[in-house]
Amino acid sequence: MTPYQEITDGGVTSPLGFSASAVAAAIKYEGRKDVAVLFADAPCAVAGVFTTNKVAAAPVLLDRQRVVSGQAQAVLINTGCANACTGQRGFDDAAASAKETAAALGIAEELVLVASTGVIGTLLPLDCLIAGAKAAAASLSRGDEETLARAIMTTDTVPKHAAVTCEIDGKKVTVGGMCKGAGMIEPMMATMLCFITTDAAADPAWLKQVLKKSMDASFNRIVVDGDESTNDTALIFAGGAAGNTILNADHPQAATFEAALLHLATTLAKKIVMDGEGVTKFVTVRVKGAASDRDAQRVARAIGKSPLVKTAWFGTDPNWGRVICATGYSGAEVDESKVRIFYGDVCAYDRGAVADDAALAKMKELMRARCFDVTVDLGLGSGEDTLYTCDFSLEYVKINADYTT
Amino acid sequence: MTPYQEITDGGVTSPLGFSASAVAAAIKYEGRKDVAVLFADAPCAVAGVFTTNKVAAAPVLLDRQRVVSGQAQAVLINTGCANACTGQRGFDDAAASAKETAAALGIAEELVLVASTGVIGTLLPLDCLIAGAKAAAASLSRGDEETLARAIMTTDTVPKHAAVTCEIDGKKVTVGGMCKGAGMIEPMMATMLCFITTDAAADPAWLKQVLKKSMDASFNRIVVDGDESTNDTALIFAGGAAGNTILNADHPQAATFEAALLHLATTLAKKIVMDGEGVTKFVTVRVKGAASDRDAQRVARAIGKSPLVKTAWFGTDPNWGRVICATGYSGAEVDESKVRIFYGDVCAYDRGAVADDAALAKMKELMRARCFDVTVDLGLGSGEDTLYTCDFSLEYVKINADYTT
Repeated sequence: MTPYQEITDGGVTSPLGFSASAVAAAIKYEGRKDVAVLFADAPCAVAGVFTTNKVAAAPVLLDRQRVVSGQAQAVLINTGCANACTGQRGFDDAAASAKETAAALGIAEELVLVASTGVIGTLLPLDCLIAGAKAAAASLSRGDEETLARAIMTTDTVPKHAAVTCEIDGKKVTVGGMCKGAGMIEPMMATMLCFITTDAAADPAWLKQVLKKSMDASFNRIVVDGDESTNDTALIFAGGAAGNTILNADHPQAATFEAALLHLATTLAKKIVMDGEGVTKFVTVRVKGAASDRDAQRVARAIGKSPLVKTAWFGTDPNWGRVICATGYSGAEVDESKVRIFYGDVCAYDRGAVADDAALAKMKELMRARCFDVTVDLGLGSGEDTLYTCDFSLEYVKINADYTT
Repeated sequence: MTPYQEITDGGVTSPLGFSASAVAAAIKYEGRKDVAVLFADAPCAVAGVFTTNKVAAAPVLLDRQRVVSGQAQAVLINTGCANACTGQRGFDDAAASAKETAAALGIAEELVLVASTGVIGTLLPLDCLIAGAKAAAASLSRGDEETLARAIMTTDTVPKHAAVTCEIDGKKVTVGGMCKGAGMIEPMMATMLCFITTDAAADPAWLKQVLKKSMDASFNRIVVDGDESTNDTALIFAGGAAGNTILNADHPQAATFEAALLHLATTLAKKIVMDGEGVTKFVTVRVKGAASDRDAQRVARAIGKSPLVKTAWFGTDPNWGRVICATGYSGAEVDESKVRIFYGDVCAYDRGAVADDAALAKMKELMRARCFDVTVDLGLGSGEDTLYTCDFSLEYVKINADYTT
């Protein structure tokens, strides 16, 4: 039995001690909720992981500075404007919005983090954002996870939130989260934005380690289009209201919390792929038998990023030749006379022998499902990797051909 | 004045001493010409460059062995089947087809090269191919470059051939070429198939150097979709009928030949991008001011491969934020406070300052042209690179969603 349980319709306010609110602030569109504030009753242990893109947005730059303290109490989130490539003005705007939010919440400025998503290269409409922050701070509540998750969406079509519970020190601990992201999804921090809360008490340094580890096994294992955002941010707030003794590497139930967090992160990451821009197929790429885990990751990523592989999936076309082609150029050690490729459990290519028409027909059949697996066994060693990815559809092109205008 | 002139409607049989033929051999489709033989009157100096994909097709494996001698006299080319991932059987088929072609031409087996393009993972219909080779060998002629170039096409929509002349040792030297390729186009050997002939006499070792150099500056500077084929092959045959003294590194007019060859290769490479699958825009990406040429290449490739950038181009959307985003994740040294981005001569981003609405409108206007430039100046050093690429359209997805079936 798993050491955690899912909560139906859970999210960031499922853990004790957290409240939130979303309001319409006219950041980009009239009449949709586009600003959210997530607030903890007391300062939390906090950890964050951020984009590795060398062009990082202003909110990322500000948060990177603030999470060093290991403490935070609130985050102000807006959609409609990424506040990226906006120079000193953008940074000052981010800091000003945090300051006004702190004042409205009655807490210290340094305890407020910020996150933005939307178009790159436009300035924040600061007055709108601050008005939104104040309105949100004045209307905090618990439980409406869907409205909250919806307020941070860009081209996402469904809100993404989840929560799990586990038991630590005999206390019920809840971990909740929400995220958004549909384009610019890449394994090196695919998150775009992800917010996780827990009522567990935890040591900030340990929290940072387990956040990184869980992100690496979840959000860093998904690919939609291979573009890495300037704004990727994942934050975890641990409030402590559950009453457990502080979690750290020596806590006997650290692994329980880690398992619950990983399950939550994987659940949220899969939701992002499922809702990827124009996605019609969810594909799990499993690579095994590689010379190293790193090689397995190279192969999985080359497959998951190949436009030719992805368009074939969209077309329900069992064109496994594109899979072995991507395998070959991935940079991994590959010997085609040892490679085996499977769609589901149908063998497409077996160490030099190619699928016959009956196998191709079976492959085509199983590709009609919304979700299927593609497995590549390199036959060389014990390296392995799993990647969650999707097809490349007409709709993806339509969505992205006309996003700013 | 350039040291070379283009020949209208020229191609591989423009140089003296070469003939060719294309026939319908029912490799994949009935009633279209799909097998071609290119033949030189006498053994030529030959050089080849091939895919770096670790999964290399049988014809690539065979040719790699044969070009080591520096001599060849003919090449058998088929479309409709890539003969890739076909194991020992595929290699034996490639060798058998070369042997039968040699017999039909009355030359030594080792002097025949082979090239295949089409679907990966299916066996060659050997009887059809050999029958086609024999028919082609029996009907060699000069001058119908279009029919020949058309016979090697897959999803290409236009045949691609060109020729140039230059003067060496007071003799008229002609260099002709044809190529095919529309998908699986990537800078690390983007060719798919490219055949170049010349009536110049040349040293094979030198020929290999100049072929590599010209490929690196032409076919290795184009991107359609970032997938690297299993079959990429570029061959050059130098027959010597022009009567010049043998070209080598010490020849006083070596540079003239190199310039002519580079012009031909660039002309052919640009034709591939122009005819890329579903392409509606041809974009020249220029990167300068990089810390190194390698860094400039990283940035150019990240931009040219980004689905988000390419779909924005398709949508005539001046979303330069995606360009700076790709710049940031390219792996190159980047400081956004020093970066400048231009669409044509309109500045989109100037070291922290973003384009205003008037600039965006101008950018949108110039993007309506079929060809435009995007320039990124990193403001760090003197590294530079140029890449020829294209947009990512609805048609690309349609074409590739249904290629084998």
